[in-house]
Amino acid sequence: MALIVQKYGGSSVADADSIKRVAKRIAEAKRAGDDVVVVVSAMGDTTDELIDLAQQITPLPPQREMDILLTAGERISMSLLAMAISNLGVEAQSFTGQQAGVITDSVHGKARIIDVTPSRIQQAVDAGAVAIVAGFQGVTQHTNDVTTLGRGGSDTTAVALAAALQADVCEIYTDVDGVFTADPRIVPSARKIDRITYDEMLEMAASGAKVLVLRCVEYARRYGVPVHVRSSFSTHPGTLVTDAATEEGAPMEQPIIAGVAHDRSEAKITIVDVPDVPGKAARIFEVVAGSGVNLDMIVQNVSVASTGRTDISFTLPATDGAAATAALTRHQPDIGFTSLQYDDTIGKLSLIGAGMKSHPGVSARLFAALSDAGINIEMISTSEIRISVVTRADQLDDAVRAVHTAFDLDSADEQAVVYGGTGR
Amino acid sequence: MALIVQKYGGSSVADADSIKRVAKRIAEAKRAGDDVVVVVSAMGDTTDELIDLAQQITPLPPQREMDILLTAGERISMSLLAMAISNLGVEAQSFTGQQAGVITDSVHGKARIIDVTPSRIQQAVDAGAVAIVAGFQGVTQHTNDVTTLGRGGSDTTAVALAAALQADVCEIYTDVDGVFTADPRIVPSARKIDRITYDEMLEMAASGAKVLVLRCVEYARRYGVPVHVRSSFSTHPGTLVTDAATEEGAPMEQPIIAGVAHDRSEAKITIVDVPDVPGKAARIFEVVAGSGVNLDMIVQNVSVASTGRTDISFTLPATDGAAATAALTRHQPDIGFTSLQYDDTIGKLSLIGAGMKSHPGVSARLFAALSDAGINIEMISTSEIRISVVTRADQLDDAVRAVHTAFDLDSADEQAVVYGGTGR
Repeated sequence: MALIVQKYGGSSVADADSIKRVAKRIAEAKRAGDDVVVVVSAMGDTTDELIDLAQQITPLPPQREMDILLTAGERISMSLLAMAISNLGVEAQSFTGQQAGVITDSVHGKARIIDVTPSRIQQAVDAGAVAIVAGFQGVTQHTNDVTTLGRGGSDTTAVALAAALQADVCEIYTDVDGVFTADPRIVPSARKIDRITYDEMLEMAASGAKVLVLRCVEYARRYGVPVHVRSSFSTHPGTLVTDAATEEGAPMEQPIIAGVAHDRSEAKITIVDVPDVPGKAARIFEVVAGSGVNLDMIVQNVSVASTGRTDISFTLPATDGAAATAALTRHQPDIGFTSLQYDDTIGKLSLIGAGMKSHPGVSARLFAALSDAGINIEMISTSEIRISVVTRADQLDDAVRAVHTAFDLDSADEQAVVYGGTGR
Repeated sequence: MALIVQKYGGSSVADADSIKRVAKRIAEAKRAGDDVVVVVSAMGDTTDELIDLAQQITPLPPQREMDILLTAGERISMSLLAMAISNLGVEAQSFTGQQAGVITDSVHGKARIIDVTPSRIQQAVDAGAVAIVAGFQGVTQHTNDVTTLGRGGSDTTAVALAAALQADVCEIYTDVDGVFTADPRIVPSARKIDRITYDEMLEMAASGAKVLVLRCVEYARRYGVPVHVRSSFSTHPGTLVTDAATEEGAPMEQPIIAGVAHDRSEAKITIVDVPDVPGKAARIFEVVAGSGVNLDMIVQNVSVASTGRTDISFTLPATDGAAATAALTRHQPDIGFTSLQYDDTIGKLSLIGAGMKSHPGVSARLFAALSDAGINIEMISTSEIRISVVTRADQLDDAVRAVHTAFDLDSADEQAVVYGGTGR
């Protein structure tokens, strides 16, 4: 008998019929002899509708009130799901984030989990019930104020709860069959990955793969929670995210490359003619960080000896472009650059695989593939298990396809899947 | 500077525009120098929509889950109202029933308030903020389970909070101008009552007046909370419910009659040919009480000497008719009655006024008025400040008008108000 934490996103519980279908699946897992704890997101478009209501009231709603408003969504889905399971003759009780012991800091709108003390969930499970827990929400430690966890919050709730309950697995149900070697909308021959390491999954998530958010994978890695990403529309096994890419006892010959991720949400800022003296680069990144912006890739050109000046480029989320540009322009006098170029028509491709550590020639093969496809590389950055390149946005799809093929990731037959983002 | 608790029902916060209108009213009260605590119901039809969703899932939803589901409604309205007030530059924070310290028993769906410990509300008020509290909801003492208070629950929340905060007044905002001498839909010349005692208001509520529920008035009387029932669509004073029908210093000549209430929701059961021996009536009411039904009026006819048998009639909520009938039929052998008649085409008229205690002839005048109007009286019951009669349902409106006129309650000019029930 195992303890399983299952998480269902908004599209899996979009209406009464979907809720009944999910309830049947949960009841079957329970009847098969496992203990089941379920984390659920708000129904379908509920969150968007609530945001819209708030916008009708005020363009800048206070975040504390916004969190109270949004958490109404999970309250509705969790109670309906508990009703649907009870209706199948399986006992079920729903619990708010607070009742489930999800304690967070007080950063409304994107709170971080500090601790999970799920004694009530454990009690419900011990008593033979299925516990349904509201995803995406928690309470602050001392004031019991309601908080939300931000994007991907329900996935994070599920993994955190699985860690606290020492669950055997955390199953993340979504509308795709698992994690793919590339986005099947761009690469129809992309293959589902059966197993992937936390490190690879982290790099995939950080590089634009949308199936799991970064913080959820970070949490799973820190606490060693096996995460099973699978479809709520089929019973096929999905992708197991764990600390070894192969099963114990299986041959350790793991594939070099896990997959190709892409990201279209970044922009590039180039700061032209920066005096090439110590401290100038540091000053730039200080200014940018001070505006609350996270940088991604950074490239400093070789200094032109005759002028003693250089260009510095970096990428950042396009949504932060205005803030960073404004901050830099404000500090133009003390940094001493000539001009600033902003470019949001870039794309980023990342090749990820723990195998590349021990296999030389991966980057050579990547660059050759891109070159053969006539794609120009504007920036490069690497980690031990990832190589990322920046291209023109309109060449990104071609780049992903070329690289996917060059590393033998194409499957024999084309998949017929719809690839979408997860809910919150 | 006073501390005012205001309660707004669902129709007052039905959409974004209504919420903004109510927010303006609250902000004005706050700017006028008073401390303001607001209790709010769910928006318009939200509760019905949530009930409908539950019905799509299962015909018999577990009450615990139903309570979690329904409390989502106040979460939405309270956070939106807090946003709207903040948007006007007045600080506002919303609080759930739990955060406001509303502790109840564990009878889901119609929990009773055990205690109110509003330390967080007091803190918010002391800090200069308007506190918005979810009506209709609380939590159980030890398990922190979410409960709802049943019909009229938000009014009860408001009065209970006003008592705990020792507020100067509890203002119940509704879609009518106050409490009327009769339902203006039936008696267009009905007058708004300026002041009414708790006792009279209790009898009004118990006799079918829908503007305030019984438990809310009971709570107000027990803790001496002045309740001001008024319209959210105007600034006219409404009806003040308090312990003296006249202001201090004002002449004590209070009107004999406060008003005429009517109730169309009852049914009558007549048990025919009951053996007129001690204990039989007690046995009947034991059986009915055992089925969870509350009786209202009871009449036992004079025993027919030749047979030693009698008829017993009582009224009860029509919704309890099936349960009571089934219980009595099951016990027909040991009670020993011949037959049972069920009649749900009755109406009840009640004349209420603390003045009738000291004014003889009130009942004579009532019966004369009904007789003159050609209306037959089927049952009568009286208390110190109330006389109730049962008539045919289709004669009830005529009866109300006749009695209203007979006791000089008609106003000079007809009111142009719409009289409706309150929200929850």
